[in-house]
Amino acid sequence: MNRRHFLQHSAAFAALPMMTRRPPLRAPLHVNGERLNGWLTAFDGIGRTAGGINRVAYSEADLAGRAFTLDLFRQSGLTPRLDAAGNIYARVPGSVATLPPILIGSHVDSVTDGGNFDGPVGSFAAIEVGRTLLETRTRLRHPVDVVVWQNEEGGTIGSKIAIGALTDADLDKVARSGKTVREGIALTGGNVAQLASAAKKQGDIACYIELHIEQGGLLEKAGLQIGVVEGIVGLRWIEVTITGMSNHAGATPMDQRHDAMLAAAKFSVAINDAIRAEPGRQVATVGRIVASPNTTNVIAGQVVMTVDLRDLDVAKLTRFKATFERLGREIGTATDTTFQFRTLVDSEPAIADPRVVSWIESSAAALGLTRQRMPSGAGHDAQEIARIAPMGMIFVPSIGGISHSPKEFSKADDITRGADVLLNAVIAADRG
Amino acid sequence: MNRRHFLQHSAAFAALPMMTRRPPLRAPLHVNGERLNGWLTAFDGIGRTAGGINRVAYSEADLAGRAFTLDLFRQSGLTPRLDAAGNIYARVPGSVATLPPILIGSHVDSVTDGGNFDGPVGSFAAIEVGRTLLETRTRLRHPVDVVVWQNEEGGTIGSKIAIGALTDADLDKVARSGKTVREGIALTGGNVAQLASAAKKQGDIACYIELHIEQGGLLEKAGLQIGVVEGIVGLRWIEVTITGMSNHAGATPMDQRHDAMLAAAKFSVAINDAIRAEPGRQVATVGRIVASPNTTNVIAGQVVMTVDLRDLDVAKLTRFKATFERLGREIGTATDTTFQFRTLVDSEPAIADPRVVSWIESSAAALGLTRQRMPSGAGHDAQEIARIAPMGMIFVPSIGGISHSPKEFSKADDITRGADVLLNAVIAADRG
Repeated sequence: MNRRHFLQHSAAFAALPMMTRRPPLRAPLHVNGERLNGWLTAFDGIGRTAGGINRVAYSEADLAGRAFTLDLFRQSGLTPRLDAAGNIYARVPGSVATLPPILIGSHVDSVTDGGNFDGPVGSFAAIEVGRTLLETRTRLRHPVDVVVWQNEEGGTIGSKIAIGALTDADLDKVARSGKTVREGIALTGGNVAQLASAAKKQGDIACYIELHIEQGGLLEKAGLQIGVVEGIVGLRWIEVTITGMSNHAGATPMDQRHDAMLAAAKFSVAINDAIRAEPGRQVATVGRIVASPNTTNVIAGQVVMTVDLRDLDVAKLTRFKATFERLGREIGTATDTTFQFRTLVDSEPAIADPRVVSWIESSAAALGLTRQRMPSGAGHDAQEIARIAPMGMIFVPSIGGISHSPKEFSKADDITRGADVLLNAVIAADRG
Repeated sequence: MNRRHFLQHSAAFAALPMMTRRPPLRAPLHVNGERLNGWLTAFDGIGRTAGGINRVAYSEADLAGRAFTLDLFRQSGLTPRLDAAGNIYARVPGSVATLPPILIGSHVDSVTDGGNFDGPVGSFAAIEVGRTLLETRTRLRHPVDVVVWQNEEGGTIGSKIAIGALTDADLDKVARSGKTVREGIALTGGNVAQLASAAKKQGDIACYIELHIEQGGLLEKAGLQIGVVEGIVGLRWIEVTITGMSNHAGATPMDQRHDAMLAAAKFSVAINDAIRAEPGRQVATVGRIVASPNTTNVIAGQVVMTVDLRDLDVAKLTRFKATFERLGREIGTATDTTFQFRTLVDSEPAIADPRVVSWIESSAAALGLTRQRMPSGAGHDAQEIARIAPMGMIFVPSIGGISHSPKEFSKADDITRGADVLLNAVIAADRG
């Protein structure tokens, strides 16, 4: 922390009676950025492999990362508790007992072969904000709850439970670690039998603010320091199963094939052409493919692949999904294969609350930071909490626009700036 | 066997002094087709899984298949011996001590999720031919060696060793079972230190005749019983590594991607278009693809895929390989990815010996079977042996043209006819 700021702030706070609705502007507070970035550096040693950071949910590395995080809470004077989902919470008390908490946080699990910034930046910044509030004795009216959600990358599982939206079927989904969500909840110290106790409802949370790396290249390209998120795009995950017939790669003439791999290739090209043919920010990705028998000299009899489709506009998502299914049927006919489509995830767009957006924006302004409003192309726990509470997000630049990759990187100064915005947005939210 | 034929044959043989160059035509011999097909039915129980036959080289199922095969040799009065490569040989003695053996056989290992006919048909038919020669006391001038080659599907390993063509680097190649060739040789009872002792040279083998299922649909479509193979196509196996950059599937705009999966799809479509644009029997297949990190919400940073390219004409193979590399470079430029090409296997076309072709053809004619000359689109151990000895192959129909698949099937009567042709081709070869 910065002692000068502490004194200024304490003086300002002391001078303001509680009933004052609009206190005069005061100098913004700052977090201890060196400490925050030190935590991130130390965290980089957990789950790092030759391929990148591998703290996939419920893996040993994820559990080690959670243990590290619990220790950060304790070091910071914050007493962590686990809810029945295995989410980690800790509270900075507020002065008005009847007010619901301002909730801040993120996650610490990673994708396969990911980076050290997607999740930990927002989680550790939230802990640092809590610690700064305690160290500066900044007594807010609302309690401030710091949260670290479990299994964000596997489908925002922890935050889904926190809004009572996880289904029984979801519990049996297998995470990238090979563990089911049900097993994962037990491993993270939760209790599947008590999941309902982890669910919040409208009014339980004053607002939710999440700091995160951008995961795209807009801020860096524009030379800006802060992204003020207007909403999180909706998402469709579609599993496509293409069935052809395995046959000998040498003895089967080209015109007698039922080649599932060729059909998959034609489909990938066709949906890419379709998504790019129309102006807008919609994206579609084939990131996963599993061919059978996946052997050099055998025509593939089956391919299972996924399509990840995203946009802020629900109508556009619906329309493109239908287009993709039509393209699949056409390519199936042309290649003597059959296409089957299965919905894996349907996640609707989540629009940020205008007041939370304004608090984030005014905090960035007070800190003298350059900024712009933008959508989030990535999904976040914030999209779940948006269903029961006003939500906002703060982005910091991702170098090269890279994330979900070992090359994922954000500069320490940018991370500190983001945490400063989070801290002051919390204070602004407390004033309302 | 058929006793009437045995008597006819013995009588004919007795009447002919050894020096007679052109003995008069006699009725063809027949194998015991019921016995042969019974062996194949029993063999179907070894290595069968839900996905098909899995006797991939050096797996437990492959070793069990070899034990079953060794037992068939012994039941048939043939004493099996292993060479240093782990190939199984057994000899039916000849009457002229100085003559090299007529070699017949095939393999019993399978691809992943394959069928029960590719390999075992020719191996068991060769054993049955040996047994029939012994049972009918058909004493030929040449010895007849029955061989079962190890690891055909992983690159004709056993037959490569038999012509001294396996390199040290090949020994360290990992087979689909996860075992190296070196480990596999030990597992099959061979001895890596003595491999040179397994190598034959020009003159060591009178000729090599292999019976095999067609693995294509030409015979069935034409309603013919026997394929007389004119040659085995040459083959190029190319490993293509496409390097892009992993990034977030939601946050990365379509025009800022380095998507290795999309590049792989465009490449697969492009080489398929190229191979089909030209008349001829050339084929190209992408049968294997491995994407990294292979996750729904991550743009693939790397794809490793294989191309299997085949034709009887070396010049055409060379030209298409160059075309594929050019297409890869162009697609790399267009998709902001890089393509690297690595040769996995270069196998040259092998042309059947005209005399062996004529013995097969005349035997089929004597048996009253319908037939046609044709190339083999699949690779076989015969292509290796062709480098040191006159080679020919006999095909029997594959129902639906399907092989390397659990749906692979050949009719018992067709298999019996193929074995009969093999038996009489051996007798014709002995006469020279």
